[in-house]
Amino acid sequence: MNLILLEPHEVGGTGAVSLSGARAAHLLRVLKVTPGQTVRVGVLDGPHGTGTVTSTAPSTAGGTVELHCAFDSAAPPRPRVDLLLALPRPKVLRRLWAQLAALGVGQIILTNAARVERNYFDTHVLAPECYRPLLIEGLQQARDTWLPRVSIHRQFKVLIEDALDGLFGDGLRLVADAAATCQVSAAVRQGRGAGAEPGAERDARALIAIGPEGGWNDFELALLEAHGFQAVGMGARTLRTDTACIALTALVHDSMESG
Amino acid sequence: MNLILLEPHEVGGTGAVSLSGARAAHLLRVLKVTPGQTVRVGVLDGPHGTGTVTSTAPSTAGGTVELHCAFDSAAPPRPRVDLLLALPRPKVLRRLWAQLAALGVGQIILTNAARVERNYFDTHVLAPECYRPLLIEGLQQARDTWLPRVSIHRQFKVLIEDALDGLFGDGLRLVADAAATCQVSAAVRQGRGAGAEPGAERDARALIAIGPEGGWNDFELALLEAHGFQAVGMGARTLRTDTACIALTALVHDSMESG
Repeated sequence: MNLILLEPHEVGGTGAVSLSGARAAHLLRVLKVTPGQTVRVGVLDGPHGTGTVTSTAPSTAGGTVELHCAFDSAAPPRPRVDLLLALPRPKVLRRLWAQLAALGVGQIILTNAARVERNYFDTHVLAPECYRPLLIEGLQQARDTWLPRVSIHRQFKVLIEDALDGLFGDGLRLVADAAATCQVSAAVRQGRGAGAEPGAERDARALIAIGPEGGWNDFELALLEAHGFQAVGMGARTLRTDTACIALTALVHDSMESG
Repeated sequence: MNLILLEPHEVGGTGAVSLSGARAAHLLRVLKVTPGQTVRVGVLDGPHGTGTVTSTAPSTAGGTVELHCAFDSAAPPRPRVDLLLALPRPKVLRRLWAQLAALGVGQIILTNAARVERNYFDTHVLAPECYRPLLIEGLQQARDTWLPRVSIHRQFKVLIEDALDGLFGDGLRLVADAAATCQVSAAVRQGRGAGAEPGAERDARALIAIGPEGGWNDFELALLEAHGFQAVGMGARTLRTDTACIALTALVHDSMESG
C-alpha cells in the first residue's frame, strides 16, 4: 500500500479521517505509525494529499487511526489509455483487475465475442463488490486515485455500433491482432501526425481492443475496423490474455508519453 | 499449446517421434488429431517443423501419438532481451516463469539484493524440475523453441563485478528505476545511435535489471550504474514485480524492434 485511498464521504469538512479495518491495520502493523507522522493519502477520483496521524488505538482486531488530511487543489489527470477487452475466463480476470488499475486505465469495457464462453458472464468476478476492492488495491499500489470505469456488454455488435461512441469519443482506436505488422508505437505516432493542433495531443486518448484467447473472428475484426480501429501487432508470439493485456497497456502508455 | 515442443533426444534419425503424456493427451483430446493430419512442432533450442500424425492410440491414461517430423534448416534466433531480476517472492516467480518465456527472453539472471528476503532462496520454485516445465509451457504458448537460460546468484556484488560480463557481453544495459525520467524507448534509440556499424543493430541485445519490491538500495544502483546500466523509468506509478517484469520486457522488445 503506497497510498491510503479514502472514499469521498470518509473525509470530514476539516480534513478529519477515522480509519479502521485493513488500512488502519496496514498503518499500525506495517508502517508502524505514531502521532505526528505523515502518510500519503488520496481521495478516490480526487486529489492526492498528506495525512498527519493525530491518534492511534491499536487493538487485536486491527485498531483505529485518526488522521488530519490536507489535499492538493486538483485531482491527477485520468489515465489516457482505455481498454476494450473480450471477457476473459474468471480466473484470469480476477488476477487482472489490480494490475490494470496499477498500470492506469481510464475505463475497462468488457464485451462478449464469438469465442467467449457464455458462462464467463455468470461469474462473481463481474460484480462490483468483487472487482472494486481489487481495483482499489491496484491504485494503492501505483499511487493513483482514478478508479477505472467498468462497463459490461453482452452484445458485441450493439456495443461497437451504438454504445462505443458514447463511451470513447475522439481518440485513437487500436485492435491487437496477431496478423498485423504495424507496431503500437508506429500507430500512435501516425495517429498523432494525423491529429489536430499542437497541444491537443496532451489530452489525447487511446483505446486498445484485446480479443479472446482464440482471437476475434473475421466478422468482429471487420466491424472493429469499420469503426475506426487500426490493427497493431506484437510480433509472432501468441500471448496469454493476461500477459497480452499488461504488455499492450504498457506499450500504449509508453507510446502516448514518448515525445 | 500452440506448438508441440520436443526434446532433441525424442527425435529419431528419420524424424520419427513417439509422444505420450500431456502432449499426446492434448493432441488427442483438444486438437482431436487423426492419422494424416499435421501439427506444428519444434525442437527445444532448435528449429520449428511440421509433424504428420502417423498413428494414434487413445487410452484412458492419455494415449500415444506417433509423428513423422520434418524440420526447418535453422533454429529461430534467440530472443534479444535478457532479464536481471532481484529474486521475487516464490509465489510471484512461479507465475512469472511461463509468462517470461512467452514474451521471449534469452536468459533470466536471478540475484540477491539487500531488500530480497533470504528465505526466498530456499524455494523449490528455483529448482529446474519446477521451472523448466513452466518455461516450456510458455514457449508452447508463444510458439518459440528457445529455452531461457537461468542462473541464480546469491552475491549481488560478485555477480555484477565478476560474472556479468561473461553472461552478458556487448549490449545495452538498462535498470528500471522509479526515479528515472528516461523512457525505455529513448534509451534504446540512444544506445543504437552510439552503437557500431549499420547491421550490427540487428544482432543487438539488451539486458533489463528489475529490483525487489522495495527497490534497489543506493549501493546497488550505484554499482549497476558503474557497470554500464542506464536508469529508465515508467512514469510515476509503482508496479508490482510481476506487472513490472511483463511491462518492461514488452517495452524493451518493442523498442528493439521499432525502426
